[in-house]
Amino acid sequence: MLNPVKVGLLGLGTVGGGTINVLQRNAQEISRRAGRGIVVTHASARDLTKPRLCHTDGITLTTEPFDVINDPNVDIIAELIGGTTLAKELVLKAINNGKHVVTANKALIALHGNEIFAAAQQKGVMVAFEAAVAGGIPIIKAIREGLTGNQIAWLAGIINGTSNFILSEMRDKGRDFADVLNEAQRLGYAEADPTFDVEGIDAGHKLTILASIAFGIPLQFDKVYTEGITQITREDVGYAEELGYRIKLLGIAKRTEKGIELRVHPTFIPVQHLIANVNGVMNAIVVRGDAVGQTLYYGAGAGADPTASAVVADLVDVVRMLTTDPENHVPHLAFQANALSNVAILPISDIESIYYLRMTALDRLGVLAQVTRILSDCGISIEAIMQKAPPDDVDQVPIVLLTHAVLEKQVNQAIAQIEALEGIHGHVKKIRVEMLEQ
Amino acid sequence: MLNPVKVGLLGLGTVGGGTINVLQRNAQEISRRAGRGIVVTHASARDLTKPRLCHTDGITLTTEPFDVINDPNVDIIAELIGGTTLAKELVLKAINNGKHVVTANKALIALHGNEIFAAAQQKGVMVAFEAAVAGGIPIIKAIREGLTGNQIAWLAGIINGTSNFILSEMRDKGRDFADVLNEAQRLGYAEADPTFDVEGIDAGHKLTILASIAFGIPLQFDKVYTEGITQITREDVGYAEELGYRIKLLGIAKRTEKGIELRVHPTFIPVQHLIANVNGVMNAIVVRGDAVGQTLYYGAGAGADPTASAVVADLVDVVRMLTTDPENHVPHLAFQANALSNVAILPISDIESIYYLRMTALDRLGVLAQVTRILSDCGISIEAIMQKAPPDDVDQVPIVLLTHAVLEKQVNQAIAQIEALEGIHGHVKKIRVEMLEQ
Repeated sequence: MLNPVKVGLLGLGTVGGGTINVLQRNAQEISRRAGRGIVVTHASARDLTKPRLCHTDGITLTTEPFDVINDPNVDIIAELIGGTTLAKELVLKAINNGKHVVTANKALIALHGNEIFAAAQQKGVMVAFEAAVAGGIPIIKAIREGLTGNQIAWLAGIINGTSNFILSEMRDKGRDFADVLNEAQRLGYAEADPTFDVEGIDAGHKLTILASIAFGIPLQFDKVYTEGITQITREDVGYAEELGYRIKLLGIAKRTEKGIELRVHPTFIPVQHLIANVNGVMNAIVVRGDAVGQTLYYGAGAGADPTASAVVADLVDVVRMLTTDPENHVPHLAFQANALSNVAILPISDIESIYYLRMTALDRLGVLAQVTRILSDCGISIEAIMQKAPPDDVDQVPIVLLTHAVLEKQVNQAIAQIEALEGIHGHVKKIRVEMLEQ
Repeated sequence: MLNPVKVGLLGLGTVGGGTINVLQRNAQEISRRAGRGIVVTHASARDLTKPRLCHTDGITLTTEPFDVINDPNVDIIAELIGGTTLAKELVLKAINNGKHVVTANKALIALHGNEIFAAAQQKGVMVAFEAAVAGGIPIIKAIREGLTGNQIAWLAGIINGTSNFILSEMRDKGRDFADVLNEAQRLGYAEADPTFDVEGIDAGHKLTILASIAFGIPLQFDKVYTEGITQITREDVGYAEELGYRIKLLGIAKRTEKGIELRVHPTFIPVQHLIANVNGVMNAIVVRGDAVGQTLYYGAGAGADPTASAVVADLVDVVRMLTTDPENHVPHLAFQANALSNVAILPISDIESIYYLRMTALDRLGVLAQVTRILSDCGISIEAIMQKAPPDDVDQVPIVLLTHAVLEKQVNQAIAQIEALEGIHGHVKKIRVEMLEQ
């Protein structure tokens, strides 16, 4: 295999630390996908004495970010310092040095993307920015590559987790805006200065980017209307509910006959729509294309690991483009053909699951006791059980229960014994249960 | 601009017709994205006299698909005939002829993908198959490129629209399986022979593909456990509801310490989970990665236009790879830098929206009449209105209303007049309403 690609990281904060952690933890998986290792060799941070969330052994550390972008051994720069002044200077200089750039910086792209992309195109380097919008959700890729057959009619997104957390809490607990904001700050979901989040500016940056890739228009943040959630009261949240709506801070980009609408504001949306049920700090974007109809993309919009997920995906994109043959730069099965693994596929009897069991008991004393005894003997705990009283003229009673997680073969064994009971009529119905956690 | 890329289409049924329609309707948009036109020049169909859903003017038609794949002028073959015998032969021959291939054929990829991909790699051609899983949802791209930083822990998807329609109807209307199946067949959601859909085989094909790209394992449909929905009764649906669950036919791929689980079966899932609320013929897939956490992808899993959306996206992927410079094969803003448009961004006063208005009236006779009069004079119809009786000791009454869709400037004008009324206390709160339809 080729030598690893060398990444220089600007910024060792939340996202920088997360990126190093993900690259280290999933190194093997990532190189099986990229066809080549990806290693952070250089990193800059303002204060090198600060405790870090990641291991920096083997990484050349400096307080001088220009040293990183000027190092001839670095192939790709990951800009993770945020802000639009120093970050802009660094990114443009890195491009000028012939480095590919990956950035998580939405403000930088929304405000200076046109200039940055022009410079990159001139120098023949890549600039990737999936992490700039909606954290780990691959929404840039979905619109830019997945929906290329469509004329996009509109998109609408919950693209600021802090605001969504506040609105969710106001609704769930009938609390006031200021009260929830305080808690969000305490939990680290909101900055000490929450203006960018609660006034819709952060969402406006992201909307600027989404609208450009949806409609093919230049980035123009200055044309985005932004209105935050600070004026939303408990009363509004309550009336919305009574009328069948939820209030969400949406970024909306819409193509109309008169022109394009770009706006961020609190919005009533029907409770039946999937996106109305996106709660807490989660993000989601609905995109309506003329061919595909509505599609929705949901996930974590911020945080160290989710944002790192997008940064690393961009790094892999760059590496795949640099490294592999053009006809197969993305392997058919995501992993390089020579890196597929032969891990065993389990037979269904060896899976572990929670089970719903339904059976019909003849209404005789003791049948339920026999059933629970069999389950217990087979090592199966019961999570919930329902036995309904039968109508007067019927002597068959349905028994319904949920087990704890067990092996399928244990359940099958128990079912065979239960079906053999005299007091049980017919077969035991078995349906697997998935909690979809973790 | 370069000459258009020439596509040969195998099959002029639902997906083939949809693909021609989308390519024609969005020709300009697509070439702005791809940097080059994409034109169907050749197409084959079993019966050329059949009425078509698309215009075939300018397309060389034949009943002999081998003529299409052997034509030296065709650059890319789109295989849209389905099945695994003739389709396999055609695809392998097209690859051997040095053509790139796009296919919507899940059974073909699930059963013969390993062989097809090996042939493609050897010949240095691309094989793309986004349309094979979940129709227009770009789920292959999301997992294969968007989540490359992650170790995927599991994925679970509603990936058969027919089954989901049947289960949704059974739940909503308390109907029986057989009854709903009949209706689905009448509506065209279910085939005359529904076995593949209701027995989980179609979902098994798709799960095979998703599992391979998630875990980096060879395609192995024969190891997938499949169990359909034919044994699910109204009783099970009802008990699920009582216990806080919904029944969905899920395709589940899970990495465990003992091996990988690949299974399709009816599954209880908690009603609170977003995917439990995916109804009708819609598809959705939840993917859990170690870095990103849970992400969800939702959209139409079948149908002419949604499937065509994915076929065309694959065509654009191939064209971008063939055509543009490697460093910018996907344009930063999705459209070629020289193809951005300067369409106007509307000021917020020019947008059209539904509005929620909340105001406080002094409890005097006639205030409500004055408010509705002003709205009417400004050309604003009222969709809903609530005026609550105040507590006995309070003389201020909240008035809450929803308008029909109007221009924001009209609403602002009305608000200014309402706020000037003697009977109105303080400001009128205005929140925009989006129905998120169409």
